[in-house]
Amino acid sequence: MTSIDFPIGPVLSTLDIVGIGLFAATGAVAAARARQTLITFAFFALATGVGGGTVRDLLIGAPVFWIEDTRPLTACLVIALLVWITPARLWRGKTLDWLDAIGMAAYAVFGAAKALSFGIPPVAAVMMGIFTACLGGIIRDVLAGEPSIILKPELYVTAAALAAALFVGLSAAGVMLPVAAGVSALAGFALRALAIWKGLALPVYRGG
Amino acid sequence: MTSIDFPIGPVLSTLDIVGIGLFAATGAVAAARARQTLITFAFFALATGVGGGTVRDLLIGAPVFWIEDTRPLTACLVIALLVWITPARLWRGKTLDWLDAIGMAAYAVFGAAKALSFGIPPVAAVMMGIFTACLGGIIRDVLAGEPSIILKPELYVTAAALAAALFVGLSAAGVMLPVAAGVSALAGFALRALAIWKGLALPVYRGG
Amino acid sequence: MTSIDFPIGPVLSTLDIVGIGLFAATGAVAAARARQTLITFAFFALATGVGGGTVRDLLIGAPVFWIEDTRPLTACLVIALLVWITPARLWRGKTLDWLDAIGMAAYAVFGAAKALSFGIPPVAAVMMGIFTACLGGIIRDVLAGEPSIILKPELYVTAAALAAALFVGLSAAGVMLPVAAGVSALAGFALRALAIWKGLALPVYRGG
Repeated sequence: MTSIDFPIGPVLSTLDIVGIGLFAATGAVAAARARQTLITFAFFALATGVGGGTVRDLLIGAPVFWIEDTRPLTACLVIALLVWITPARLWRGKTLDWLDAIGMAAYAVFGAAKALSFGIPPVAAVMMGIFTACLGGIIRDVLAGEPSIILKPELYVTAAALAAALFVGLSAAGVMLPVAAGVSALAGFALRALAIWKGLALPVYRGG
Repeated sequence: MTSIDFPIGPVLSTLDIVGIGLFAATGAVAAARARQTLITFAFFALATGVGGGTVRDLLIGAPVFWIEDTRPLTACLVIALLVWITPARLWRGKTLDWLDAIGMAAYAVFGAAKALSFGIPPVAAVMMGIFTACLGGIIRDVLAGEPSIILKPELYVTAAALAAALFVGLSAAGVMLPVAAGVSALAGFALRALAIWKGLALPVYRGG
Repeated sequence: MTSIDFPIGPVLSTLDIVGIGLFAATGAVAAARARQTLITFAFFALATGVGGGTVRDLLIGAPVFWIEDTRPLTACLVIALLVWITPARLWRGKTLDWLDAIGMAAYAVFGAAKALSFGIPPVAAVMMGIFTACLGGIIRDVLAGEPSIILKPELYVTAAALAAALFVGLSAAGVMLPVAAGVSALAGFALRALAIWKGLALPVYRGG
């Protein structure tokens, strides 16, 4: 598949960079909590920062984004170093959750947009947004041996689905892309923020 | 690689649908046992239903099957909803094992057939059948935090290998494809059924 | 992407075979320690032996190396059988670590070389060397339910990074490929050997 006339403009590119950078930071913070070495910081930052986008690119048949352009790798390594040298109190409490929430919303929109730009149909493009947004965090949690967010009733995948579906719907409806991207990312972030702040959660299965 | 003159007829297409649907059901049932939310039901159903086939398509260089055709995604989501709303007693006991056994046998044959249709050599096509059949279940078990079937002495991978190898052998020997597919899937299912029913297992390593 | 004028000569091919074979052996030994069946021996040997190289090929857009050429699969299966029938005392103690160390150094160099031969830029080629060398072991540890080497402070990823970066640097500097490959693999192995022998480790994060 080749690129069609769905432009990835500056707003979407910014969401990509924000997603990579913030996920890399959450990976490095997870390494800090697990008292790892600087090399493991780098490994966690890379796997969390570029993991979701890598799987997205493999699935849609795009060249993997960090192979030709080495800036994402460099950004992840610099962020790992920054987390290593800054005071740990900056990363306490719910900091990880909030960084992750912004990264998730940004990456859900960018993932769906990149899929559309490769001519992927709408339903699969929404799935790509969800994957891009959720896989980085799942990889990080598995690496750190922590229970994955997707196994908790707290809203997470739902917020990514809202952001990705809203973006695909708004852009199909002819809304200007920068506006559609901004509104969708904010909506996904707002829903996830309610989950972090108020514990907003889905009901669990009670069949039996 | 492009498609060669190995036709995927209606019997093989049926095995594909059966594999996707039953694996999706086992994913949703695993989510029910873990008292998850409806979103997690959908996530487990999708990952288990399309996971093995996705890896197969990436390895053989085929377009990922659920990107252009959204029916597999829709089927997984509908099945997740059905498991959510039906009485849990339907899914008790060994139901999961039996659904999984049929899905495994169907998917082992279809995975090998799809690989052959892309011009993959016989030995690698058998491996693709085994991968397609086993990976969905492994993904489900890892997601649910349960010990994977491949770590138990009970026959499982062996049954998938029987189905895939028998299909590749019979079709190479010129047996009509619908017959080869049906016989191979039944043989794989029968071997797995003996394992579920009678505890048929391989000997474990006793070196020392 | 297609192959450019970076020749994979006999020294690099030997490193590939050594990497596949030794990783397959460590996978089978992990299965023996976990008292698994012969089928699981084969599964562990295959996943560990070809896992890292498979991910490398998917990322750089190369055809997966064991699809057309079935010798790697056959080698992994033969090695699984050899580990099954030989006395377990051969595989005691640190044998697994030493086999893994040679396989890691060989695979770090070959992974970087294969990436260069597909026209991948230097920084990404170094990453490919690290991935090829480390992923097989990570897959093995996850399958066997053991804590992964990358979570321990002992030098491991660092040694792979040294081998891959040294090879990319030396070949860019015009050093003859067989010499660059040999020197780099030896350097990576020597660093890992110090870690196994003397417990050489990186400092862990003490921020707080």
